[in-house]
Amino acid sequence: MKLSQIVNIVNGKIENFKEDFNVKGLKSIETATKEDLTFTKDPKKLEKTSAGAILTPYFVESLDIPQIVVDKPDIAFYKLIEVFYPEEKKSGYISPKAVIGNNVDIDSTTFIDDFVVVKDNVKIGKNTIIYPFTYIGENTQIGDNCIVYPSVVIYKNTVIGNNVIIHSGAVIAADGFGYYQEGKERKKIKHVGKVIIEDDVEIGANTTIDRALVDETVIKKGTKIDNLVMIGHNCKIGENTVLVSQVGIAGSSKIGNNVILAGQVGVADHITITDNVIVTAKSGVGSDITESGIYGSSINAIEWKRWKRVMSIIYKLPEIIKKLKVE
Amino acid sequence: MKLSQIVNIVNGKIENFKEDFNVKGLKSIETATKEDLTFTKDPKKLEKTSAGAILTPYFVESLDIPQIVVDKPDIAFYKLIEVFYPEEKKSGYISPKAVIGNNVDIDSTTFIDDFVVVKDNVKIGKNTIIYPFTYIGENTQIGDNCIVYPSVVIYKNTVIGNNVIIHSGAVIAADGFGYYQEGKERKKIKHVGKVIIEDDVEIGANTTIDRALVDETVIKKGTKIDNLVMIGHNCKIGENTVLVSQVGIAGSSKIGNNVILAGQVGVADHITITDNVIVTAKSGVGSDITESGIYGSSINAIEWKRWKRVMSIIYKLPEIIKKLKVE
Amino acid sequence: MKLSQIVNIVNGKIENFKEDFNVKGLKSIETATKEDLTFTKDPKKLEKTSAGAILTPYFVESLDIPQIVVDKPDIAFYKLIEVFYPEEKKSGYISPKAVIGNNVDIDSTTFIDDFVVVKDNVKIGKNTIIYPFTYIGENTQIGDNCIVYPSVVIYKNTVIGNNVIIHSGAVIAADGFGYYQEGKERKKIKHVGKVIIEDDVEIGANTTIDRALVDETVIKKGTKIDNLVMIGHNCKIGENTVLVSQVGIAGSSKIGNNVILAGQVGVADHITITDNVIVTAKSGVGSDITESGIYGSSINAIEWKRWKRVMSIIYKLPEIIKKLKVE
Repeated sequence: MKLSQIVNIVNGKIENFKEDFNVKGLKSIETATKEDLTFTKDPKKLEKTSAGAILTPYFVESLDIPQIVVDKPDIAFYKLIEVFYPEEKKSGYISPKAVIGNNVDIDSTTFIDDFVVVKDNVKIGKNTIIYPFTYIGENTQIGDNCIVYPSVVIYKNTVIGNNVIIHSGAVIAADGFGYYQEGKERKKIKHVGKVIIEDDVEIGANTTIDRALVDETVIKKGTKIDNLVMIGHNCKIGENTVLVSQVGIAGSSKIGNNVILAGQVGVADHITITDNVIVTAKSGVGSDITESGIYGSSINAIEWKRWKRVMSIIYKLPEIIKKLKVE
Repeated sequence: MKLSQIVNIVNGKIENFKEDFNVKGLKSIETATKEDLTFTKDPKKLEKTSAGAILTPYFVESLDIPQIVVDKPDIAFYKLIEVFYPEEKKSGYISPKAVIGNNVDIDSTTFIDDFVVVKDNVKIGKNTIIYPFTYIGENTQIGDNCIVYPSVVIYKNTVIGNNVIIHSGAVIAADGFGYYQEGKERKKIKHVGKVIIEDDVEIGANTTIDRALVDETVIKKGTKIDNLVMIGHNCKIGENTVLVSQVGIAGSSKIGNNVILAGQVGVADHITITDNVIVTAKSGVGSDITESGIYGSSINAIEWKRWKRVMSIIYKLPEIIKKLKVE
Repeated sequence: MKLSQIVNIVNGKIENFKEDFNVKGLKSIETATKEDLTFTKDPKKLEKTSAGAILTPYFVESLDIPQIVVDKPDIAFYKLIEVFYPEEKKSGYISPKAVIGNNVDIDSTTFIDDFVVVKDNVKIGKNTIIYPFTYIGENTQIGDNCIVYPSVVIYKNTVIGNNVIIHSGAVIAADGFGYYQEGKERKKIKHVGKVIIEDDVEIGANTTIDRALVDETVIKKGTKIDNLVMIGHNCKIGENTVLVSQVGIAGSSKIGNNVILAGQVGVADHITITDNVIVTAKSGVGSDITESGIYGSSINAIEWKRWKRVMSIIYKLPEIIKKLKVE
């Protein structure tokens, strides 16, 4: 693609233009060569680049390469990626190596790859792609334009909307983790509820979402879930919420809209977190959060020798406070 | 099922009985309609329900719907779920699309679904169900009445008892994580031990249990393991213990009977935790716990701005304590 | 194998030798019987063993069993494991139940088991073993002497070196977790970069390594990764580094050579950790570590009642410090 074409696509203004050339690839500042286009959000920080051209929010005197000035160079770059690297279309195929159950309704535009198992009474919409080794349990519905990557397991009765992406190894609607005590033994509580994944949700690799006892575990529209996240039975996750990798949410908790739980955050069971909350990485949420804002209990690692000293004092705080007679 | 039949099944006493009706489903307080039965453990907290009938520990004057009074309404409800939603029987089938090795002994009542791989010298007991895409390595034994969900991987030499449930994506008996240093390089220590899973154990989705060096990693009878849990090589996990989601237990640790490790707890290697211990969510166990009780080091998230102030003081505690001349 | 042969193999000196015998197995101190060989690194701690013979760093008067004195008995033992329990050779086979794409170049010595999917333009080197239910995406390269266990998913364009071991359920090169805001919605940023795994790397079960935006996520030579680890898009992990189970590293972070991140450590995005750093289990790294050494923020669990008291004081530290007029 010619540089001049790109200028048009991103609706930018070209500076330092010398000669039109074929842009071979989109690369980062560090790796771009003179045949590549890159971008910067912060030209002040830019020391050097070997790129052939750059997307920038304003013209930078000191850079003598062609500069495409656009409002948001990062977003322009992300949109260019879609144009530069179009996805190969897969549609209208059911592999003879797939096993399709009875009373299954798969739209003729949908693509089912080898070694997919689709059990009875499943319905799959238009232009959806199901990769190999994926298991779709009985009575499951999957909408239009979904991508289900290899080795996803969807237990029965699941409802999945449109434009949903599920990455490899994700397990949807396994049994909720619930037992009742009978003497010394723990007896399994049978979970007959379901999981509902609304439109535009993305679910990361090896993430698990358990099904509800008798109702539903729900992931609402537009929510994005990273890898290795655990969502317990009966949880309700709001709209446009972000759950970063290794987050764990225990059973029956309700997370609002537009919430961000950073990596490795844990949320106890039966907790409510309101809308527009951010919880910093590694923090634990053990009580309701009723006001929007930023919350956390993360501790940044320091030199271990010193941290051990800090800890030894922390453990003694009750006695220290007593001696000092303050609180 | 008629309401009157349910009263008999749960051995309860009916109050406010008007007219017998067909109970269509079992639902939670929030979602039950007039055709459903629900339950409450705490009728005082009950504001309203649209349920057609309710299981309750005592009669509630203010509620005009039929009430079934039973000792433990939650457990009565869990038992009713089993009656209401019986599992479809699967038995006595080996799919021609499964690959079965040499010298394999599978009981004639057991069900092997499509795309299962069973390697040589495997023995599987009665009434066990193996779902698609599950791999069972050489010399593995699986007992009676087990359920192995899709995409489980069981490495060779594993021993699994009766009534064991293994959820999708679980990996049993992968190599222990051990290396020795040779110059700058780390050399792999070959692990030739095994994993033993005793009766009545449940293993959650995407959980991993590594095999021992030369002995056994053991999960004892009745223990329940949630999703995304890591159990290191040579660990011994006691009976009727509960490991909640994302718990990690490093190599060679011994966890007692009837222990509960809440979500995201970490246990260091070579640790011993005695019986009847509870560790609160997100806590770290870095030294032995020799007395039963509740332990923890969890910190509940607070407003981030304040937490940052708290942290800045914590880091300075050694100097503060020095100035104050107390400790 | 005769005891005398073992003495030769480990190049040791035999003490207390009575009669040569056949060593049946290699076992730990606790489980060895009189037909087994065991080892001890610390004979002082050794109270008793039922072993038939022992590898020891020096002769122990009080032990009347045959003792093989070697410099490093643990390493001698690990090396003996390899001799005692040789791996069955698998080579030169492509299962007719595998699905192999177009323009695929698989060395004739490589072993492809049943139900493997290899997409177009894949290249696999010599003596590599691919187990069932593994998916290898388009344009992927895998080197020599690799083992890919069952149910691994490798998304397209991945580059894997020689002697790499990937355990079951690992997901390599899934989409990086990145979105940009457009109104209330989050729009997916398409990731077209790749993952590069260098020689001698081991990747644990259910670990996920995301691919880069336009460049590469790189795991360098000799690095060992445990189970359930998350490595974000664009990360660079150095050589001979160890990532213990459930570690999470957010996008674009750079970890040096010979670093050890203990279990459940979290590293924020865009962080740099220099060479020869150890971070203790459960710690969070939220800022760069520029000097080699040991770092941490772990807190060891104590009696919960006391910990709650400690926490209540910690939360009040800002007011306490104010009252005391120290800081």
